[in-house]
Amino acid sequence: LNLYAIIMAGGSGTRFWPLSRRRRPKQFLPIISERTMIEETAARLDPLIPTSRIFTIAGADHTRIIRELVPDIPSDNLLVEPRGRNTAPSLLLATAAIYRRDPEAVVAALPADHLIRDGGRFRERLASAAEAAAANDLIVTFGIPPTFPATGYGYIRFSREEPLRAGSADFRRVLEFKEKPDEKRALEFLRAGTYFWNSGMFLWKAKTFARMLETYAPDMFKWWTAMLTALDDGSPAAMTRIFEGIPSISIDYALMEKAEGIVMGEGDFGWSDVGSWSSLSEIWDADDDGNSGRGRLLALDARNCLVFNPNRLTTLIGVEDLVVVETDDALLICRRDQDQEVKTAVQALERADDDDHL
Amino acid sequence: LNLYAIIMAGGSGTRFWPLSRRRRPKQFLPIISERTMIEETAARLDPLIPTSRIFTIAGADHTRIIRELVPDIPSDNLLVEPRGRNTAPSLLLATAAIYRRDPEAVVAALPADHLIRDGGRFRERLASAAEAAAANDLIVTFGIPPTFPATGYGYIRFSREEPLRAGSADFRRVLEFKEKPDEKRALEFLRAGTYFWNSGMFLWKAKTFARMLETYAPDMFKWWTAMLTALDDGSPAAMTRIFEGIPSISIDYALMEKAEGIVMGEGDFGWSDVGSWSSLSEIWDADDDGNSGRGRLLALDARNCLVFNPNRLTTLIGVEDLVVVETDDALLICRRDQDQEVKTAVQALERADDDDHL
Repeated sequence: LNLYAIIMAGGSGTRFWPLSRRRRPKQFLPIISERTMIEETAARLDPLIPTSRIFTIAGADHTRIIRELVPDIPSDNLLVEPRGRNTAPSLLLATAAIYRRDPEAVVAALPADHLIRDGGRFRERLASAAEAAAANDLIVTFGIPPTFPATGYGYIRFSREEPLRAGSADFRRVLEFKEKPDEKRALEFLRAGTYFWNSGMFLWKAKTFARMLETYAPDMFKWWTAMLTALDDGSPAAMTRIFEGIPSISIDYALMEKAEGIVMGEGDFGWSDVGSWSSLSEIWDADDDGNSGRGRLLALDARNCLVFNPNRLTTLIGVEDLVVVETDDALLICRRDQDQEVKTAVQALERADDDDHL
Repeated sequence: LNLYAIIMAGGSGTRFWPLSRRRRPKQFLPIISERTMIEETAARLDPLIPTSRIFTIAGADHTRIIRELVPDIPSDNLLVEPRGRNTAPSLLLATAAIYRRDPEAVVAALPADHLIRDGGRFRERLASAAEAAAANDLIVTFGIPPTFPATGYGYIRFSREEPLRAGSADFRRVLEFKEKPDEKRALEFLRAGTYFWNSGMFLWKAKTFARMLETYAPDMFKWWTAMLTALDDGSPAAMTRIFEGIPSISIDYALMEKAEGIVMGEGDFGWSDVGSWSSLSEIWDADDDGNSGRGRLLALDARNCLVFNPNRLTTLIGVEDLVVVETDDALLICRRDQDQEVKTAVQALERADDDDHL
């Protein structure tokens, strides 16, 4: 069983503005620990997957940063997506690159910017998932048992029938991928007990992926064969043309929502997609008043605030439920339950052509 | 009529932390305009009082700053209080210094850190008040017509009887000086119509001041004669000993609350003591949502926030009624109605011996 990893590092991560910028989005920042998220993601695979079998895919702009941050990964494995076109095109390209090396390879597609607290358990689950994918010609995904009626995640509905056993884990048949629900639906999903959060992590044998595309996503399969040809020809220009033509869609939409033969393992390894500033409040240690952050904090009658200001003293007086982020050139103060609106602020800066702050 | 000014520049101004620091309190900062408050205070006297008759009094630490900021004032006029001992000792010293030059001099004691919007009207009122003080052997003060039941100011109760006319203004007999009231009392004061805010500005003839002390504050008069002797002897050591022994009390408490023969003019010249960050919201221009400040602001669904962050972009999302102040080494975020608690934060830093931030 030759297990490979594709670390998907193409996200722009505007939700962590002003810390994340075009040149250095979230996956290249030390948000969770002293190391950047992509470093954590690569290190977490050791010793299960050797660096020679770890690939990354990102835009050309970010490939230099990746080389600096994870220098153990061979340069040839740092794949470049000529255009940012969502996850489907980048996973087609990365899987095609691995397919050319070994069609029997099992590929684990892993976002570069997720938190996994229990690395040991993660590798154990990944090994079992790889066994399931290798032996059964299936796509394997990880579902996260929901702890609240989240509206910020997609959901996976799974079957209650007898699970498939592989390695040390059970895998349940996926019945349906669901887009992000509204609050009412999210509550229904939570109560039903058969909906887990979609972690965005997938495993497949390279040749199974090709077959699945051919069967369930023939429009995308055309692009797959074109990519293989471009790789065979060593033609970056051809690949650029492909990325200019291919639809910008997620792998969920392109394949998962249509395919049969997907199973789900339980992602019981302390996962978080760290999707926004406020999500860090579950990750960083808080004081007795619920304040957490990076940097020195003087809190007087302040509660449930999240402060990222590593270089200055922050004094909070009489405030609550704030997200505060300070960088060299920008300060963000946001009500905690509105931190998704950080995107709106970034859009306003884009409209103003304020490249300095983007 | 020889009119002199004493600019009282001894305050420590902790309420404007983190912008104001021990080394540079509020009166030495450009809070209202491009110029510092002490510069504005000195410039406002032109052409009524020539710089040769303007004195300042402050601690030795701040005298160098004063010399830099108001270089037109003769060095001999920059009086040093050997210890910070509240307003009574510093006004005794400054008035004594002027008394030695001319006992008939009329002295206007003016805080260095107040805002006066209408300088022309102020000079007119000051000239009339000086006439009243010179001709009638009285102490003259300015009362500010209250616009809300403030609990942060002292009050002056005045008589409804026929006012004294001097220059172009009326002066009413003061019946009582009142310390800062609670909310209930403040409302009573406002409704009564005979209570104005105590501006902390006073005028007296130097020899009237001496006589008033002798009559109504004999304990302080002893210190006055001791100061005159120390000045005659040119003995800084003697003056230091005086400041080590003299009680640390305000001129209101030492003299005004006890004396007869005080009159009040109406301070109708756009006065504010600029006592806290939130007071600036009445002074700085606000946008349609009530946000005001210094520095570039991107406000999304944010209201009534006051932001001082001249060097960085500030983005506010979904927040209201905040005071935000950013300096090179500190960030303050404070609920607007709790900005008096900034003092508490400063005290916490003092307890922590955090000299860097004080």
